[in-house]
Amino acid sequence: MNQGLLLVVSGPSGVGKGTICRALEAMDSSIHLSISMTTRPPRKGEREGLDYFFLSEERFQELIKKDELLEWARVYTYYYGTPLRPVMEARTAGKDVILEIDVQGGFKVREKCPDSVLIFVFPPSIEELRARLRKRGTEDPVALEARLCWAREELRCYGRYDYVVVNDKVEEAVKKINAIRTAEKCRSRRNLGMEQLEE
Amino acid sequence: MNQGLLLVVSGPSGVGKGTICRALEAMDSSIHLSISMTTRPPRKGEREGLDYFFLSEERFQELIKKDELLEWARVYTYYYGTPLRPVMEARTAGKDVILEIDVQGGFKVREKCPDSVLIFVFPPSIEELRARLRKRGTEDPVALEARLCWAREELRCYGRYDYVVVNDKVEEAVKKINAIRTAEKCRSRRNLGMEQLEE
Repeated sequence: MNQGLLLVVSGPSGVGKGTICRALEAMDSSIHLSISMTTRPPRKGEREGLDYFFLSEERFQELIKKDELLEWARVYTYYYGTPLRPVMEARTAGKDVILEIDVQGGFKVREKCPDSVLIFVFPPSIEELRARLRKRGTEDPVALEARLCWAREELRCYGRYDYVVVNDKVEEAVKKINAIRTAEKCRSRRNLGMEQLEE
Repeated sequence: MNQGLLLVVSGPSGVGKGTICRALEAMDSSIHLSISMTTRPPRKGEREGLDYFFLSEERFQELIKKDELLEWARVYTYYYGTPLRPVMEARTAGKDVILEIDVQGGFKVREKCPDSVLIFVFPPSIEELRARLRKRGTEDPVALEARLCWAREELRCYGRYDYVVVNDKVEEAVKKINAIRTAEKCRSRRNLGMEQLEE
């Protein structure tokens, strides 16, 4: 069996990455959605092993030392990272793994796994992104504008990603990412030795 | 509107390229199937402008001189080539153009149009290719084995193509090529300037 794909899905906060990734996972049992690890305490409603794996800073440092993280970053005082083993195991079992991480994480994954597929999710417009962030209602207006400013910076990175998918309608974005999966499996560089056809 | 894709579909004789390409064209009006030109006389049942454009050697030479062919080759005493203008016009109109040509032609197209997408159609096995060629019933056994020998040579070229699609079932191969079209349209290098989002 061929190894599963490693798909990185990034995009600015509020663009709908989470909804897209969960829709992909729900519709296809051959998709494994990676769960990140963090040292920050759980927010209200967040569940261990579903939203994040929550762990101590000591344990996180240990994982870094043992090289058991595919990528990690420190944001302010907290650590975030992707555990390596579940990714490897799922891929070996032929499952496509999805990492929903930021662009800096994406670049690190690309370095470690050059065969990874980097997908950037774009909002249809900045106004729409603003509206989606507002709908969440979790932020005051100043924090929201700061997030939009950061989003503009992130959007400049899409050229270093392989694909860009505009999230106008979730179903359409999901269809496009599924098409990318099918196409990537047909890439000749992922199918070496095919000329050794059986008689 | 974005320019349409330029898709090259190659593969050994008998693999079913023609059936796949016609199925793609029939199901989607935004696909333009390119018709090749040749100086060889029409075979029984071949129709001008549908199977080929048939023309004199004098006229063909004129098109070569005027650089009106995207690619061309001389096979024994006859010339074969792809007229450039219909390809350009269809792409400008946003249509995806399919060229069903051999690998040598594919490499020439890649040189002239680096943004072209090269798809290699593989048989499920050599035995299946032999069976399909036999079914056509147009060749004596010796010519058939010669064709299979040539097919093996061609199959070695697939690594220089972008994608490889095994034609086990036509519908599946068609679905895969459609997924490749969707994915290629999402490639970030085909979507420059997207960070200039409207407010």
